[in-house]
Amino acid sequence: MARGDIPGATGAKKGRPLSEKTEAAILEATAQLLAEKGLAHLTIEEVAARAGVGKASVYRRWPSKGTLAFDAFESDFLSRQPLPNTGDLRGDLLAALRAWVRTVRDTPIGRTLRGLIGEVQRDPALEGIWRERFMTPVRARHRALVDRAVARGTIPPGTDSDLVMDMLYGAAYHRLLQGHLPLNDQFVRVLVDAVVASIGAVEP
Amino acid sequence: MARGDIPGATGAKKGRPLSEKTEAAILEATAQLLAEKGLAHLTIEEVAARAGVGKASVYRRWPSKGTLAFDAFESDFLSRQPLPNTGDLRGDLLAALRAWVRTVRDTPIGRTLRGLIGEVQRDPALEGIWRERFMTPVRARHRALVDRAVARGTIPPGTDSDLVMDMLYGAAYHRLLQGHLPLNDQFVRVLVDAVVASIGAVEP
Repeated sequence: MARGDIPGATGAKKGRPLSEKTEAAILEATAQLLAEKGLAHLTIEEVAARAGVGKASVYRRWPSKGTLAFDAFESDFLSRQPLPNTGDLRGDLLAALRAWVRTVRDTPIGRTLRGLIGEVQRDPALEGIWRERFMTPVRARHRALVDRAVARGTIPPGTDSDLVMDMLYGAAYHRLLQGHLPLNDQFVRVLVDAVVASIGAVEP
Repeated sequence: MARGDIPGATGAKKGRPLSEKTEAAILEATAQLLAEKGLAHLTIEEVAARAGVGKASVYRRWPSKGTLAFDAFESDFLSRQPLPNTGDLRGDLLAALRAWVRTVRDTPIGRTLRGLIGEVQRDPALEGIWRERFMTPVRARHRALVDRAVARGTIPPGTDSDLVMDMLYGAAYHRLLQGHLPLNDQFVRVLVDAVVASIGAVEP
């Protein structure tokens, strides 16, 4: 019998959808609590209570508070920034950076992101987890925009996509963390233009 | 009588050289203690004791721990990075960024800088002081390299020196704070080349 023919009849696999639902509930409760109190004051007890699960369910999936918090934050962060596909690199980078700026400037996500980066600077045990659970997947998502332009043949095959990411998001994180100048649309436009010019894009 | 004609004879002004020496001693003691214990555990008492002055002398010049710590850090940070004058923008930016990388990567300054930025993310009261006492003067020093190239006529007069700073130092701070990729000479070279290309420099 094919799965899904008779809803609820595939006894042995019944646990799976519930498990996904539980996972989603835990991640959402964690993201909420992170925004409300920050990483330092987050407890697994409170996450479990808000998600309506036992502490053991949380620990079965996440070995530590850091792994749970960063997974939850990454999932929340990326869900607010659908990957653009405008047809050219400049348009893609503009759309992606605009979504990033809106997320960190206009929602509580920005304050939480600053707080998490602050914690990571103070606690060496969190560094590797933060890179693995947040920076690496988020960077990979954004770098795909550059790789697509390389595949399209509109920028040179040897383009250093890490450098492109560092110039673009490095500048944006710099303004977020230092607050020396505004994160606004004017900034997004001149930054994207400068970064695209630095690649020597041959796009129209 | 002209000042300085007879050393030690100008009674009313005698305090001045001592005061500069005291100030230097306080700043140096603060920089040392910052490196040793970080901002959170720094106390004015300990600074005064190590500098061999009274607490009142410290408070006479610095209204809070944050202003003292950031002044001391800025002074220590910049003293390790003499401003280059190589004759062209690319050479100047290469030399400046190399000195920055050496300072944050090869001395305890990098760990202290990360710690201070971490504290600033967690404490809104420190944000303005950090910008005023550290970011603004340090940025102004580096931006002077771009302004000089504009004055020399080798880059367009309308060059957005804030954007240049954000791409260059934003990328460098990004690697320092996130640790996703190394801060090495290869990075410095490709970054400076890309930033100079983005300006549309007409230098040879």
